[in-house]
Amino acid sequence: MQQQISVITLGIANLARSRRFYGEGFGWKPVFENPEIVYYQMNGFVLGTWLETALAGDMKRERLARPGAFALAHNVANRHEVERVIEVLSRHGGRVLREADAPEHGGFRGYVADPDDHAWEIAWNPAWSIDMDGHVSFGL
Amino acid sequence: MQQQISVITLGIANLARSRRFYGEGFGWKPVFENPEIVYYQMNGFVLGTWLETALAGDMKRERLARPGAFALAHNVANRHEVERVIEVLSRHGGRVLREADAPEHGGFRGYVADPDDHAWEIAWNPAWSIDMDGHVSFGL
Repeated sequence: MQQQISVITLGIANLARSRRFYGEGFGWKPVFENPEIVYYQMNGFVLGTWLETALAGDMKRERLARPGAFALAHNVANRHEVERVIEVLSRHGGRVLREADAPEHGGFRGYVADPDDHAWEIAWNPAWSIDMDGHVSFGL
Repeated sequence: MQQQISVITLGIANLARSRRFYGEGFGWKPVFENPEIVYYQMNGFVLGTWLETALAGDMKRERLARPGAFALAHNVANRHEVERVIEVLSRHGGRVLREADAPEHGGFRGYVADPDDHAWEIAWNPAWSIDMDGHVSFGL
């Protein structure tokens, strides 16, 4: 099957609070929004932020737990950008989980939780390339 | 900031079990693997499956919960493919959460949990386009 993910959907408790983090913190523009969901067109797929009760119902689960066992990463061009983005996100509803530092394998990264406790790694990884359209390629 | 997600990392308990679901169920080829992580090059970003204890430590959290408040979607070309993919995944360690049916907004979809209880929506959404490289665009 095609090596493809179409959507990442995050369960959220409060649409306005989440929209502030993504819209003003990251500065991302929605491609669609209604009173229960906001979609963002990303680099080859779509990010959705959907009321958690609706998401749980759609997948026929009673309860979803937080913080979940996953992380999303946003890579940037240099180590100073890592610190800058973490600072901006923390002013728009984000909570720093790990101050930026250098991992063993190189680069620089920190972690911020969004207002619904979903983890974002903000990373500079000089081995991975990012093209003009934001498409990210694995590198060693 | 660039509207871009570089990596989705899923916390997993058992590398071989997870690799079977993604490698034989979805049929995806790793771009890198070692005894604690497997990376897959996806449509504009990278999917990582990493031992959950290591992921939790990296984000400085004591404990991660499951099932988390998120879902990933894999879109396919027609409704028959939805049923076929769900059936194949269920034979490779997946567990059906919702049998495929038609949502109100159109199309067709079901949900499968991976061996670590992460939710995958398998969907046919005729309004969204997927190009040859698997890049997915939002549509109404």
